[in-house]
Amino acid sequence: MNEDDSKETGGEFQRDTDYVSDRITAGGRTPEHGPADVRLWPVEPGRYRLVAARACPWASRAIVVRELLGLQDVISLGLCGPTHDVRSWTFDLDPGGVDPVLGIERLQQAYFARFPAYDKGITVPAMVDVPTGQVVTNDFPWITHDLFHEWREHHRPDAPDLWPTDLREEMEEVMERVYTEVNNGVYRCGFASSQEAYDAAYDRLWVALDWLEERLGTRRFLMGEAVTEADVRLFTTLVRFDAVYHGHFKCNRQKLTELPSLWRYAREVFQLAGFGDTVDFDQIKQHYYLVHSGINPTGIVPRGPDLSGWTEPVAVPGGG
Amino acid sequence: MNEDDSKETGGEFQRDTDYVSDRITAGGRTPEHGPADVRLWPVEPGRYRLVAARACPWASRAIVVRELLGLQDVISLGLCGPTHDVRSWTFDLDPGGVDPVLGIERLQQAYFARFPAYDKGITVPAMVDVPTGQVVTNDFPWITHDLFHEWREHHRPDAPDLWPTDLREEMEEVMERVYTEVNNGVYRCGFASSQEAYDAAYDRLWVALDWLEERLGTRRFLMGEAVTEADVRLFTTLVRFDAVYHGHFKCNRQKLTELPSLWRYAREVFQLAGFGDTVDFDQIKQHYYLVHSGINPTGIVPRGPDLSGWTEPVAVPGGG
Repeated sequence: MNEDDSKETGGEFQRDTDYVSDRITAGGRTPEHGPADVRLWPVEPGRYRLVAARACPWASRAIVVRELLGLQDVISLGLCGPTHDVRSWTFDLDPGGVDPVLGIERLQQAYFARFPAYDKGITVPAMVDVPTGQVVTNDFPWITHDLFHEWREHHRPDAPDLWPTDLREEMEEVMERVYTEVNNGVYRCGFASSQEAYDAAYDRLWVALDWLEERLGTRRFLMGEAVTEADVRLFTTLVRFDAVYHGHFKCNRQKLTELPSLWRYAREVFQLAGFGDTVDFDQIKQHYYLVHSGINPTGIVPRGPDLSGWTEPVAVPGGG
Repeated sequence: MNEDDSKETGGEFQRDTDYVSDRITAGGRTPEHGPADVRLWPVEPGRYRLVAARACPWASRAIVVRELLGLQDVISLGLCGPTHDVRSWTFDLDPGGVDPVLGIERLQQAYFARFPAYDKGITVPAMVDVPTGQVVTNDFPWITHDLFHEWREHHRPDAPDLWPTDLREEMEEVMERVYTEVNNGVYRCGFASSQEAYDAAYDRLWVALDWLEERLGTRRFLMGEAVTEADVRLFTTLVRFDAVYHGHFKCNRQKLTELPSLWRYAREVFQLAGFGDTVDFDQIKQHYYLVHSGINPTGIVPRGPDLSGWTEPVAVPGGG
C-alpha cells in the first residue's frame, strides 16, 4: 500500500479504502462472497502478474498466500523496491529499473493503462493483466480471498485450507478485529497528528494485543491447530512490530519479544515455509524510515533491533 | 545540559564542552584534582543554589550526589521544567514561573548576572551564588567531584564513600570510558546527521554496553561491592535508556531489560535511596521528545514503555 493515501479526522489517521475492486474468479463466475457488482475476470494461468513489495504488510499477505497455495507457476510476481516517491512504487530493484514482464518503470503506468485519469492511490498489492498491462484489482483483502477460493484448481496438492468453512464466521470476526485494531492500529499510532489521538490509538492497540496474547495462550494458531488466512493477516503486522512499529510508530508498551504467547506464535509462523522466507527486514526498515519523512526527517534507518530470535527454535505449547 | 550546544563534524555529534569552570572548595583552597587556575569560591552552607532539571542526565548526577551525601540542608535545589526554548531552561514548574530563591524566570539570567555578554550554552546543572545571583560553575563532572571532596565537613555521618582513594585510578578510567562511549554515546547515535555517522556511533555504543554487561556479570556495582561516583554517572544514562534512547536515539539493538546484568544492576541502583526517588520518567520523556523537534517533529511523546520493572525486587548475584 502507500501511506500517503490517508486522510485525517481530528488528528486520527484514516486509511483511504477506495480501491479498484474487480475480481478474478474461476471461469469469471459470480463470487459467493464480497463485491460482485464489478468486472469479473477469468482465472487463467500465466495471464496475471501480482505486483507487490516485500516492504509492505498489505502486499506481503498476497506474497505469502501465493507461496502457501503453490501458485508461483501460474501467477508471476513483480517486486517493487522498498521506497516509493510521491507518485508511485517503482521497479528500481529490476535491471534498468523496468519490470521484465510488464515493461514499466512505475506501477502507476499499469493504473493509467486501465484508467487514464486515475487519481486515487497507486498501491500494492495489485493484480495486473499482462496482455493489456492494466490493473485488475488492488483490493487487498479480496486478492488473497480469491487466490484461495477461485484458483483452487491450480493449488498445489497439499495446499493448506486457509479458509476452513466451519470456522469462516468466527474467522471473519477475528480478522475484522485484527484489521481495525492491529493491522491499522499501528498506523493509527504512528500517523496520529495530536497527542490526544496518539494516546487513544495506543490504548486501543494494546487492548487488542492483550486480547491476542490471551487468545494465543491457549491456541497454537489464531483459529486453532492449523494456519489460516487469519494468521497471514496478523503475521504481516507482527513481523514488522519490533523492527518498525515499536519505535517508529511509538507502539512501545512492550516489544513483541516481551509478549510470551504472541512471540512464540509469531516465531512459529515465521518458521513455516512461505512466511519467514518471504520477509526482508532490511527492505521493511528502509521503507518506513525513509518514506515517512514527516516522522523521521533525518532518514536514518536504525541498525537494531537484534532480530536473531526469529529463527531460534520455538517450544510449542503442549508439544502440539 | 542543553543539546543545542553541539557542533557537527562529518555528521558526527560533538558535545560543546566550553564551561564556566570555577570551583567551590573548602575554605577556598586549591583543589587537589581538576582545574585550579580558576576562581575558587569557599564552601559555605546556604550560600549556593544547585539549579538542575530532573529531565537532564547531566544535571541528575548532581541531584543524586546531593541526596547521597545528605547536602540538602546546606545546598538548596532549584528545578527547571522538562523543556527549554532556544534561549534557556526556565523555572516554569515554580509558582509564577519564578525561582523562589533566585527570583529569576530563566536560568540565562544567572549566567548574564555573571557575564553580561555570555554567549555559550545555558546549561544545567549550574551552581549559583545566591547573594549575587551569579553562576559559579556549570562544569558538571567537577560539580559532583567537589560535592564529595570539598563539602565533606557537611556530609551526613553515614554518607557513602563515592570516591574511594584506593580505586580512584581505575574509577577514572571506567568513568572516562562510560562518558565518551555511553553517556555521550547515546547522543552520538541520536544526533548523527548521516547514516554513516549513525552506524559508526551505534556500533561504538554497543561495544561499550557489551563491556559493561560483562563487567556487571561479576560485580555488584561498577567498582565492586559499594556504590561510587562511577555508578551515579552510568545510572543517569541507563535510567533513560528504554524510555528515550532506545527509540528516540535509535540505540535499539536491545532494550536495557534484555541485558540481564545491566538490568539487574540498574534496578538495584534505582532502588537505593537518592537514585530512583529523584527520577521523573514523565519529565525525561517530555524533555527529549518535545525539545528535539529535528528528530521528532510531531512532538508526540510515546506512552510506553512499561516501566514497572524498575521497582520490582531484584535478585542480587551471589546473594551479596
